[in-house]
Amino acid sequence: MYAVTVRDHMMVAHSFRGEVFGPAQGLHGATFVVDATFRREDLDADNIVVDIGAAATALRAVLADLSYRNLDEATDFAGINTTTEFLARVIADRLADRIAAGDLGASAVGIAGLQITLHESHVAWASYARVL
Amino acid sequence: MYAVTVRDHMMVAHSFRGEVFGPAQGLHGATFVVDATFRREDLDADNIVVDIGAAATALRAVLADLSYRNLDEATDFAGINTTTEFLARVIADRLADRIAAGDLGASAVGIAGLQITLHESHVAWASYARVL
Amino acid sequence: MYAVTVRDHMMVAHSFRGEVFGPAQGLHGATFVVDATFRREDLDADNIVVDIGAAATALRAVLADLSYRNLDEATDFAGINTTTEFLARVIADRLADRIAAGDLGASAVGIAGLQITLHESHVAWASYARVL
Amino acid sequence: MYAVTVRDHMMVAHSFRGEVFGPAQGLHGATFVVDATFRREDLDADNIVVDIGAAATALRAVLADLSYRNLDEATDFAGINTTTEFLARVIADRLADRIAAGDLGASAVGIAGLQITLHESHVAWASYARVL
Amino acid sequence: MYAVTVRDHMMVAHSFRGEVFGPAQGLHGATFVVDATFRREDLDADNIVVDIGAAATALRAVLADLSYRNLDEATDFAGINTTTEFLARVIADRLADRIAAGDLGASAVGIAGLQITLHESHVAWASYARVL
Amino acid sequence: MYAVTVRDHMMVAHSFRGEVFGPAQGLHGATFVVDATFRREDLDADNIVVDIGAAATALRAVLADLSYRNLDEATDFAGINTTTEFLARVIADRLADRIAAGDLGASAVGIAGLQITLHESHVAWASYARVL
Repeated sequence: MYAVTVRDHMMVAHSFRGEVFGPAQGLHGATFVVDATFRREDLDADNIVVDIGAAATALRAVLADLSYRNLDEATDFAGINTTTEFLARVIADRLADRIAAGDLGASAVGIAGLQITLHESHVAWASYARVL
Repeated sequence: MYAVTVRDHMMVAHSFRGEVFGPAQGLHGATFVVDATFRREDLDADNIVVDIGAAATALRAVLADLSYRNLDEATDFAGINTTTEFLARVIADRLADRIAAGDLGASAVGIAGLQITLHESHVAWASYARVL
Repeated sequence: MYAVTVRDHMMVAHSFRGEVFGPAQGLHGATFVVDATFRREDLDADNIVVDIGAAATALRAVLADLSYRNLDEATDFAGINTTTEFLARVIADRLADRIAAGDLGASAVGIAGLQITLHESHVAWASYARVL
Repeated sequence: MYAVTVRDHMMVAHSFRGEVFGPAQGLHGATFVVDATFRREDLDADNIVVDIGAAATALRAVLADLSYRNLDEATDFAGINTTTEFLARVIADRLADRIAAGDLGASAVGIAGLQITLHESHVAWASYARVL
Repeated sequence: MYAVTVRDHMMVAHSFRGEVFGPAQGLHGATFVVDATFRREDLDADNIVVDIGAAATALRAVLADLSYRNLDEATDFAGINTTTEFLARVIADRLADRIAAGDLGASAVGIAGLQITLHESHVAWASYARVL
Repeated sequence: MYAVTVRDHMMVAHSFRGEVFGPAQGLHGATFVVDATFRREDLDADNIVVDIGAAATALRAVLADLSYRNLDEATDFAGINTTTEFLARVIADRLADRIAAGDLGASAVGIAGLQITLHESHVAWASYARVL
């Protein structure tokens, strides 16, 4: 099994509801350093997992929709705790949609799985993995 | 599949028996930077894998029992080579016991797997993964 | 010249005023991984630059006053762009006050300089250095 | 499941053929920081996954055959795009051959799987995983 | 003293002349992860050291002129060993020219110093620092 | 001013005397990831700060004398707290001796300064800088 990962980041504000979140119930923010991993069983005709330039561009586009915003005011996430693990899934699903739409090229049809990891600090990170 | 990881560290002394260990047969020591990864299929009602504060506290407690000690004198490990991979399992099993005891909260019953990674230097690390 | 550094982090929300900030004029947030470096010419009687436990506790206290907050609503920073470089100075000055107040122990009188570095992502960081 | 990883690096020149590679069609180069991960179900009699010294030596030998070279002129790779993901497989397969040849010691027969990860920059890496 | 750093990278091929370089006398390559640090005594009216977006764009432009090339064929460097430390200076000087040309904005006149660090692997890096 | 850094590591056991050290008064250990930085005003005839291979070999030799040992039993350090900052100086001074002895080559006479940084964990490090 092969995998290729590209890294980017986003900066957001948000707050959480629920006692489990302690001080993070207040409006605060985070830098998420985001790793997008693409997996496939065999390489394509160019000997790659994915066009890494197209992958980075697609990840950038997905993050641009979320970045420099207060996620508490995002209608998509009304009433939802936008935790690190939840955002990992949002990004994975949106990237999967872009792959399905052909944004990563025709050969990307061979991508079997995606994993998104969000690093919220030097001591905590979360990920979501799915098949395509 | 979702995962959340928290990082902490411990500093121990120990020695190894067996020619394969070369100079590490002498009493020496290590800083282990420890990553504890919690996996589950679905998020809980708060949209999280685990209460990250409780997870960090539990990991801290497990490491405190091992840290700032000469493991050669630990009765738990008498006659055992406390290698990086072995210690990864010890920490995983002790953390699993704490999850079972309810230390990470009621929702932690949904945690399906644990992985512990110990970084012993910038060029070597080891891990142990298990189901719960 | 000797130096010792301890690392911690904080998570804040804020926004900036001024065209130069582009999309960062919107309310967003950041994780700042914070490195506090203490410098001195000679070691103290215990052979250390600073009591590293006391230094970490003092840094934690300074960051706790800023963390999990919307800095736009902090009266201390009314009308001020709380940029990464500005926050580095705030933290340095507050840590200097704690050293002067004796929070880092009597021997800390020998500390000659402080540097605070705030990492805002994997591709950008800022610092402020001052003498004591 | 246990795993042990050792890290080393190599520096090569190469070029790619295919429009998908854009400017990387020109002769350029890369530092690959290489992580070799060895997995096994149970530890051996010494309580280890692998003799980490022998593992590092074997990885060093495999990388020495590739390092400080222009891979475009390597007869092994004639007409082949030596992409990061392709090189990960080459290294994995050559390391597997060394394990089979006994270079990592008799106990290494218990190694169940290998993963090789090549970091080509701070924002991109690729891996190949196989069973033994 | 304040400082702001932005990180980017470039990938080049080159070779060295001189016995001191050993195997690096052959045509090989490197990824250089490049950190550009801007220093100034006081912040500008926006409370920043430099427009970080403009700084990143200028660094990108300087690196684009060098990246995905065989530096042995660069007329600028004819007969010159393009070592890591030499390239650090080239990048520093070219970035200084861009600051002088106004590419980083009018306020950048206050930048007092520049440091460029090139990471060539996880175990080696070089830098060049200059005043403006 | 130019600088070149090489990284290596050592693993030691030791204990400290003094209440300020808390639990670290017990016999424990540490991995120190060691960065040795060489500074000089101008490059030598080969366009380098130092023969990086010779520098790495010299650093390796200095660390080999300290590694895989219980420093409490080292006669050189009898009655001395072998703190991170103290060890940084020991390594700097021993490396300076090797430079003076010609181990880094004739051109190394131009090296103006040395800095040694010891990372003891992901959240703490210390350094010592000196002129030559």
